[in-house]
Amino acid sequence: MAATMNICHHNFPLSNDYQTANRGPRSRVRAFQEATQEAQKPSKMTTRLAESVSHMLHLHIEKPKPKSLRTMINSHDKPILSPKEDISDKWRQIQGSSGWGDLLDPLHPCLRREILKYGEFAQATYDAFDFDSFSEYCGSCRFSRNNLLNKLGLHYHNYNVSKYIYAMSHVDVPQWLKKSHVMDSWSRDSNWMGYVAVSDDKESRRIGRRDIVVAWRGTVAPTEWYEDLQRKLEPIGAGEAKVEHGFLSIYKAKNEYTRYNKSSASEQVITELKRLVKLYKERGEEVSITVTGHSLGGALAVLNAYETATLVPNVPITVVSFGAPRVGNIAFRDELHQKGVKTLRIVVKQDFVPRMPGIVLNESLQKFDDITGTLEWVYAHVGAELKLDVRASPYLKRGFNVLGYHSLETYLHLVDGFVSTESSFRTEARRDVALVNKACDMLVEELRIPHFWYQMANKGLVCNDHGRWVKPERDPEDVPSPTSEGQYNVFHHLESNYQGA
Amino acid sequence: MAATMNICHHNFPLSNDYQTANRGPRSRVRAFQEATQEAQKPSKMTTRLAESVSHMLHLHIEKPKPKSLRTMINSHDKPILSPKEDISDKWRQIQGSSGWGDLLDPLHPCLRREILKYGEFAQATYDAFDFDSFSEYCGSCRFSRNNLLNKLGLHYHNYNVSKYIYAMSHVDVPQWLKKSHVMDSWSRDSNWMGYVAVSDDKESRRIGRRDIVVAWRGTVAPTEWYEDLQRKLEPIGAGEAKVEHGFLSIYKAKNEYTRYNKSSASEQVITELKRLVKLYKERGEEVSITVTGHSLGGALAVLNAYETATLVPNVPITVVSFGAPRVGNIAFRDELHQKGVKTLRIVVKQDFVPRMPGIVLNESLQKFDDITGTLEWVYAHVGAELKLDVRASPYLKRGFNVLGYHSLETYLHLVDGFVSTESSFRTEARRDVALVNKACDMLVEELRIPHFWYQMANKGLVCNDHGRWVKPERDPEDVPSPTSEGQYNVFHHLESNYQGA
Repeated sequence: MAATMNICHHNFPLSNDYQTANRGPRSRVRAFQEATQEAQKPSKMTTRLAESVSHMLHLHIEKPKPKSLRTMINSHDKPILSPKEDISDKWRQIQGSSGWGDLLDPLHPCLRREILKYGEFAQATYDAFDFDSFSEYCGSCRFSRNNLLNKLGLHYHNYNVSKYIYAMSHVDVPQWLKKSHVMDSWSRDSNWMGYVAVSDDKESRRIGRRDIVVAWRGTVAPTEWYEDLQRKLEPIGAGEAKVEHGFLSIYKAKNEYTRYNKSSASEQVITELKRLVKLYKERGEEVSITVTGHSLGGALAVLNAYETATLVPNVPITVVSFGAPRVGNIAFRDELHQKGVKTLRIVVKQDFVPRMPGIVLNESLQKFDDITGTLEWVYAHVGAELKLDVRASPYLKRGFNVLGYHSLETYLHLVDGFVSTESSFRTEARRDVALVNKACDMLVEELRIPHFWYQMANKGLVCNDHGRWVKPERDPEDVPSPTSEGQYNVFHHLESNYQGA
Repeated sequence: MAATMNICHHNFPLSNDYQTANRGPRSRVRAFQEATQEAQKPSKMTTRLAESVSHMLHLHIEKPKPKSLRTMINSHDKPILSPKEDISDKWRQIQGSSGWGDLLDPLHPCLRREILKYGEFAQATYDAFDFDSFSEYCGSCRFSRNNLLNKLGLHYHNYNVSKYIYAMSHVDVPQWLKKSHVMDSWSRDSNWMGYVAVSDDKESRRIGRRDIVVAWRGTVAPTEWYEDLQRKLEPIGAGEAKVEHGFLSIYKAKNEYTRYNKSSASEQVITELKRLVKLYKERGEEVSITVTGHSLGGALAVLNAYETATLVPNVPITVVSFGAPRVGNIAFRDELHQKGVKTLRIVVKQDFVPRMPGIVLNESLQKFDDITGTLEWVYAHVGAELKLDVRASPYLKRGFNVLGYHSLETYLHLVDGFVSTESSFRTEARRDVALVNKACDMLVEELRIPHFWYQMANKGLVCNDHGRWVKPERDPEDVPSPTSEGQYNVFHHLESNYQGA
C-alpha cells in the first residue's frame, strides 16, 4: 500500500455543529479541466423544456439576500481545519445498515463528512478528465492512477487508487463518448469512466473497516440527458427487473478489437472488487464497498451495486449517488433492496435530472399512461433520499439555472450547508464556496467569483524556449496504457485481456 | 532611458526572402487575456449581415491544401532567429515618405519587419487589457507601463513605454466601455486605451531616428461595429473635414469629475508627444512619430495623426493601421494628405470592417445614394493599402469566419507570409502560427491548435495556502493610479489634471 501523509484525528466528541467539511490544502493542485462553455450550455430546446418542467414543479424564484456575504466569505479564506472523527463504532449506520432513517434530518455530521468524501471522489472523475479534443489523449484521465488523488488535492482522504475503469457503448448515447480529433489517439472507442480506490491503514482505522470505493464518471451537462432518456427498458438479471438500455450498454459493452474494452466496465470492476475483497478478507479485515457517482455516474453506480451484490457476496454495499436519474423499473428496485444494497440518493430539489426518465413519455410505454395518468413510476427510484434546496444557500443565485442545479459542486456545497429541513444554512460550513462556480454560474455576483472558472492556462499550450506556443508532451507516467494497467493486476484471470493491444 | 537587453544586428544584406518576422522568446510571458468567447462571438444578425456582405463581395470559399502542414509547423517549433537589419539609411522610405509605391508588391522585407513591430505594439493593447468584469480593475491595463512590454515578451523590440492613454466617451458606443461589476472600482468611466512608447538608444541607431510610437487599443469583436457605424459625421478642424462622431467622442471626451479623463485621450497624447519631441529635438536627434492601431484603434490612430500634424509640427508622422474602418469624408482625407501624414492601411480582403462605414446606408445621407448609386465614398479611406488574402496562407481554414478575418493576429500572420500578390505564402515566415488562434478559430484542424486559447488559468483564481480559491491582489506596481501616472510627467502643464482624484 502506498505511503500516505495525512494526520488522522481520533475520538472527537459528536456534535451537530461539528465542522465536517474541510478542504485540504489544494495548493499543489495542478489539475484542470477545459470547462468548454459551449459543451456545457444547455441547448435552447432543453432550456425551454426544462423551464416548463420547472413550471410544472412550481419552483418559485426568490430574491437573494446577500447582505454580508462578502464578509462571510472573507472569513472563509482562512478556514480552521476541523479534525476528522473516529467513526469505527458507528460506520454501519453511516453506511446505511438501518436505512439512514434517523440520520438525514437533521443530517448527522459524521454522515455529512462521509457524503462529502464520496462526492469529492466522484468530482475527481470530472476534474481529471481530458476534454481536449485536440489532445491525442482526449477521453482519458490526465493522470496515472498513482497520481490522481494527489494531483487533485484529495490525498487528505487517505485512499489509494488501485484500478482505472474504461467503458464504451454499443448504443448511441448522445454526446457521451469524447473523441480525439487526432488520428493516432490513445483509443477510438473507450473513455476513462472511473476508478477503484481503497482506504489506507489510517483511514481504515478511523472508519472501522477497509473501504473499497468505486467512483463512476457522469456527464457534466444535463443537455445530453433529455434526448437520450426516453428509451426502452432492458431486462437485467433473471427476473422481471429492467433497466434503461443506454446505461446498461455503457456498463456492459466490450469488443475484443478495442484496446481498453476487451473486457467491459462491468467485468473490470467486478474482477477488481473480487480481488480486493479476497485480499483484505484473507487478512481478516472487515470490508465495505461504496459505489458513488453523479448524474450518469450515479446510474452506473446503481447498476454496479446490483451486480456486485450477486457476484461479490457477503460484503456490505452502499451506493451514494448525486443527481442520478432513475435506472430501472419497480422490480429492479425491489431486487436491489432484497440483495441488501443500501442506496443514499442526494437530490437537489430543483435539479430535473433525478426526475428522469419518467417525465417525458416513453412511446413504447404509452399504454401505462392510459391507466395511471402518469409514467413517473414506470422508472422507480431506489433507497433513501437526502433532499437539498438551492434556496437554502445564501450564496446561490435564485434565477433558473439548469446547469447550476445539476452541477456536482452545487450538490456538495448544499450538503456542506445542510443541517435540517427546518434550519438555515450551516454557518460553520467550511467547504470553499468558490468551487461551486467551477463549471457553472450559480454564485451571487457579490462574491465576485468568475463563472466557469475551472480552466487551463492557454488551454494547455505553453511557450517553449524558442518562443513557440506548443502542446507539451504528457508526463510519460500519465500516458494511458492498457498494458501498464494490466501490470498492476497480475493476480486475476482477466489479465490477458489487457495485454493485447 | 531604461536599460534594455537585446542585441541589435547591423548591416545585413537586403534580400527578399530575408526572415523578418521573429518572435523573441516569450517564455517570460505571464500575460493573458480573458478571451471570453461569448463576447467575441458575432451575433446571429451580424453573421447574417456579414454573410450577405461576403456574398456581395464574391468571396469564394476554397478547399484547404494542408498536405505536410504538421511537418512545416514542427520545423517552426525551433525557429532560427534572424538578425535585425540596419535601416538607418532608408527609414524615411520605410515610413512612407514616398508613399510606399514600390515597397508593397513585392513587400520589402524591411518594411515587413517594421509593420510587424507596430502590429505587435497594437496587439499588446489587447493582450494586456483587463477584460474581467469581476475585477475591480476591469478596463485597465493589467501591468504598469514599466512592465508592459516585458510581461508581453516584447522587450526585444527595444522600446520603452512613457505614457498610458485613457479614454471615455460622451456617445453611446455599443459594447465599447468595459466596466467592472465591483462597486469600488478603479474607474467608472474610463478605459485604458493605449500607450506612448519610445525607441531606446540601440533601436534608434538601427532605425536611424528616435521613434515615438502611439499604440491605440481597438475592439476585439466586429459585432460591435455593425450597429454603431451607421452614424453621423461630425466636423473636425476648420474646413469641410468630417469624421465619424463615435470615434471622435472616444478621442475627445473628458470630464473633470472622472479620475482618468480630466483630460481627453487627445490631450493626453498630444501633451506627451510635445514633451517627447521637444526632449529629443533639443538633444539634436531626428524624431519620427508612428501611430498604430487595429480596428477602432486604427480609426483613433488616424484621428490622432491628423491632430498631431497640426499641433506637433515638423515631425514626420506615419500611421500603420490594421483592419481599420473608414474614419471621415473626402475632405478629411484630403486634409490629412495635405498635412503630410503618411498612412499605410493593412487590410485583409475578407475582413468587412475596413469596408465600414459605407456599405450600410446612412439614413441622413440617403440623398447621396440617389446620385451616386453607392455610398462607399461618402466615407473615404486614406493613404496606401497593403491588401492581404486569407486564402494565401496554407495554415488558415477556408470557411467564412467574421471574427477570424478581423483578428489582428490573423493580420500579422498574413503580413509575415506575404511576398507579393503573385507569390505563394513565404516559406521562411517564422512568426508562430499558433498565435493566430489566440482569440479566434482560424487555423486548420490538422495543426491541433486549440481555438480561443489565450486564457488565464482558472480565470485568475489561485488556491491560497488554506486551500481557498481566491483572486490574488494585483501587484501594487501594476495597480492603476491617476497620480502615479502624473508623477512620470512632471514637465508639462496638464500635470495638475492628473493629481485631482
